[in-house]
Amino acid sequence: MYVMTAVGADGKVAGSTLTWLSQCSFHPPLVMIAIQKTSQMHDAVEASGGLAVNLLGEGQKEIAKAFFRAPEPDAGRFGDYRYEPGPLTGAPLLTDVPAWFEARLTDTVDRGDHTVFVAEVVGAGVRDAAAKPLVLSDTPWNYGG
Amino acid sequence: MYVMTAVGADGKVAGSTLTWLSQCSFHPPLVMIAIQKTSQMHDAVEASGGLAVNLLGEGQKEIAKAFFRAPEPDAGRFGDYRYEPGPLTGAPLLTDVPAWFEARLTDTVDRGDHTVFVAEVVGAGVRDAAAKPLVLSDTPWNYGG
Repeated sequence: MYVMTAVGADGKVAGSTLTWLSQCSFHPPLVMIAIQKTSQMHDAVEASGGLAVNLLGEGQKEIAKAFFRAPEPDAGRFGDYRYEPGPLTGAPLLTDVPAWFEARLTDTVDRGDHTVFVAEVVGAGVRDAAAKPLVLSDTPWNYGG
Repeated sequence: MYVMTAVGADGKVAGSTLTWLSQCSFHPPLVMIAIQKTSQMHDAVEASGGLAVNLLGEGQKEIAKAFFRAPEPDAGRFGDYRYEPGPLTGAPLLTDVPAWFEARLTDTVDRGDHTVFVAEVVGAGVRDAAAKPLVLSDTPWNYGG
């Protein structure tokens, strides 16, 4: 599970839990991400063309839950969770998670109730290389936004 | 992990192991799938616009391995594995796997070394509702085609 973030048109940051994401190319390094069309995150990605994905560790179900409806961002925090701006996109990087990447939008498929965004990974970092990922099947949920 | 199948332009069926797949819409039910551009599967999906995805069960690592380079199809079998044609697309449904779906191509993103195919799920079946899925992290592999 992931917490995706982006900077909206008004400069306000958005964050939301995400499960529909996969790598989709090695060269260049691309990911495909499906985002609910009615969400603030959708508007922010379309506006800025940049995004960050924060990879949750296996013990971080509470962070996933918190970002089903993100806490109001204020002074470098989403509620309990501190972030710093991504060096390339400005999208928030949660400082508590084991790994993250930043990506720039390349293509969009507007077909269903979620838009498919294809984005090129332009930067990444690992804070805890030993961490195992939080996976949806280890949670009580079937879908994470 | 999944074994994807499709019928090629020449009527010959293709099958290959797949890991880069996610749901990407509820209404309509869409999936996004990234397929290596140089593969026979890529050509088959582009030619027919139809595909099937066979969902592997947790004990079926051997099937995943067999379809890294699919056995030559012959008389309703890929090597050791029997299949029947999908009722809607003709794409092979492996009779040993716990679940499958058929889908029709709606959109394509040609950007990286894999093409992103977005497809609408048009049919599905479950043979073993109690089965747990085979996931990549339970295997020795990091990528499955």
